[in-house]
Amino acid sequence: MTIGSFYPPQRTLMGPGPSDIYPQVLQALSRPTVGHLDPLFIGMMDELKQLLQYAFQTENTFTIAVSAPGSAGMEACFVNLVEPGDKVIVCRNGVFGDRMRENVERCGGLAVLVDNNWGEPVDPVLVERALVAHPDAKILAFVHAETSTGALSDAETLAKLARQHDCLTIVDAVTSLGGVPLRVDEWQLDAVYSGSQKCLSCVPGLSPLTFSQRAIERIQRRTIPVQSWFLDQSLVLAYWSGEGKRSYHHTAPVNSLYALHEALVLLKKEGLENAWQRHKDQHFELREGLEKLGIEFVVDEASRLPQLNAVYIPEGVDDALVRQTLLERYNLEIGAGLGALAGKAWRIGLMGYAARSENVALCLKALETTLK
Amino acid sequence: MTIGSFYPPQRTLMGPGPSDIYPQVLQALSRPTVGHLDPLFIGMMDELKQLLQYAFQTENTFTIAVSAPGSAGMEACFVNLVEPGDKVIVCRNGVFGDRMRENVERCGGLAVLVDNNWGEPVDPVLVERALVAHPDAKILAFVHAETSTGALSDAETLAKLARQHDCLTIVDAVTSLGGVPLRVDEWQLDAVYSGSQKCLSCVPGLSPLTFSQRAIERIQRRTIPVQSWFLDQSLVLAYWSGEGKRSYHHTAPVNSLYALHEALVLLKKEGLENAWQRHKDQHFELREGLEKLGIEFVVDEASRLPQLNAVYIPEGVDDALVRQTLLERYNLEIGAGLGALAGKAWRIGLMGYAARSENVALCLKALETTLK
Repeated sequence: MTIGSFYPPQRTLMGPGPSDIYPQVLQALSRPTVGHLDPLFIGMMDELKQLLQYAFQTENTFTIAVSAPGSAGMEACFVNLVEPGDKVIVCRNGVFGDRMRENVERCGGLAVLVDNNWGEPVDPVLVERALVAHPDAKILAFVHAETSTGALSDAETLAKLARQHDCLTIVDAVTSLGGVPLRVDEWQLDAVYSGSQKCLSCVPGLSPLTFSQRAIERIQRRTIPVQSWFLDQSLVLAYWSGEGKRSYHHTAPVNSLYALHEALVLLKKEGLENAWQRHKDQHFELREGLEKLGIEFVVDEASRLPQLNAVYIPEGVDDALVRQTLLERYNLEIGAGLGALAGKAWRIGLMGYAARSENVALCLKALETTLK
Repeated sequence: MTIGSFYPPQRTLMGPGPSDIYPQVLQALSRPTVGHLDPLFIGMMDELKQLLQYAFQTENTFTIAVSAPGSAGMEACFVNLVEPGDKVIVCRNGVFGDRMRENVERCGGLAVLVDNNWGEPVDPVLVERALVAHPDAKILAFVHAETSTGALSDAETLAKLARQHDCLTIVDAVTSLGGVPLRVDEWQLDAVYSGSQKCLSCVPGLSPLTFSQRAIERIQRRTIPVQSWFLDQSLVLAYWSGEGKRSYHHTAPVNSLYALHEALVLLKKEGLENAWQRHKDQHFELREGLEKLGIEFVVDEASRLPQLNAVYIPEGVDDALVRQTLLERYNLEIGAGLGALAGKAWRIGLMGYAARSENVALCLKALETTLK
């Protein structure tokens, strides 16, 4: 059998990511490849760093994009900051908190779990209790915006508690970056990772990452090497440093970085505050329509993510069949439930370029017709 | 300062990779993004697996592309196959053999080094001696085509020795895949990784990977979990398996996988044997011209890679200035020396789409003029 070229359809992506990609980003993606040590490329990398600093609202020197998806960004934080025997308080209120626990354990660390129900934010009272009970804990890890449930946690308060108990913070901002306020410096977060394919509306495959000076110092004080060569950020830093000669670490994903640069140029042009507001506005439009259809949200309004709307599947409705119809008839993707919410919820994303009235209108009408 | 879109120049890429990208591959790259669990995307992944099996000349069920560059593919092999305390014989005749040692040590393994001079192939006699001296060794690791020197080692013979001593093989085929014969099944190689940006002429950022049944069984017999969550192939397998329901592991780099699919469609269309011959033919053209310029090769003819020509920088020539002139005047990139060859050699790549007469002609004339 001869395999020919693959021509994907034009979908509207309203799942938990990848989100709709800006057309300009796809254009940037296919520009001519240059070498990863080409001076012009290095100049672009310097710009990219500045743009990432803007998106993260940080002046951290160590602000880069990991050459792999968000889960590698998560792992980069843990393998660099956790040494065998280290105690890490891990907040778990969805799939990604549990993945953090996995990471701690695979680093030889000891994970102390703070559990909240799926769909709820991380409870600072429980976190404080754990910090008091474990004065030897070195790190507090939590998910800012849980992609599996659509719950937003109070990163500022959690980070403050961590500092009071002399802990660094590792923060999953995969779904929050660009969609809701995230202020790395003001909130004094230490290690924050994200993904390219959510509210930045770039192609999947890169993980923006920033480390505070406190995090860098912790890495420099390590006594055993980082267990991952690929994710050892002390090696990667030499490539991204911008000071003097670049040293080769690995071949950068050149074209994907063009795309991320373009996505961030667009974000800067719109302005972070405007982007946050747009997500909120579109969320209100979507919410109004969903409520008219009698569809209920998983997360309380106070901690609901505008960019990721987890809603209960109405009773008697065939989950898979509805999603299949949306995809086949309307070329519209919404997300299935994950983990504890599998089969019980849908996740409707309004991320980045997907957060537009035409998307909301399509989604509402298509759902209305399909659910009839 | 406002940062605008980045418009890279059109370079001719004749370094050690990334190589010139097929125009069709760049077109495929920018096709509309679909979800990583979209049935049409999963269909493409199944085709991609078949195409990778063709490129590797294997029927291994576990044949995938790691969602990260070649160095992550290397790490995927080591973290999955090496357990703490395992003895691994590592052949070192360039930068990438030494990176293998790093990987073994970071996995808690014990690396036994077999050293050959830079520019020489791995010597099977030395390898056999090491296998005899270390009957408890569990793995033999070597680089098929050393990207840092341009030397080709005899993978078939080395793998045979490994089997005779009950060792699995980990083989770096980053620069060999698609450029010189590589027959995973016939040679009975166990864990083989490559890169997208070399002789496949795809964008950088993906690492084709294949595991034999023996390797899979070794992984299944592990007593401690793989230290990397992201690279734990027992988890990844569930996503790529193609049997029944796909389980989510990480968000696949959708567009990069379109590009790899297209690059492999082109390779299949040309035919592997034809591609190997084309690399050889272009190498002869280049060699003839370089010899006329009095330029000498680092590697003996018998083990010289056609796709990566490491040549000594003529005496009295300013290395950096020549490369800068080629880049600025001719938009031509050739590679600097790496490691022990830094400042002493250039690496001229003829990889994939770069292996064309027009590239060779440009390179020879530009070098001739610049060296005058």
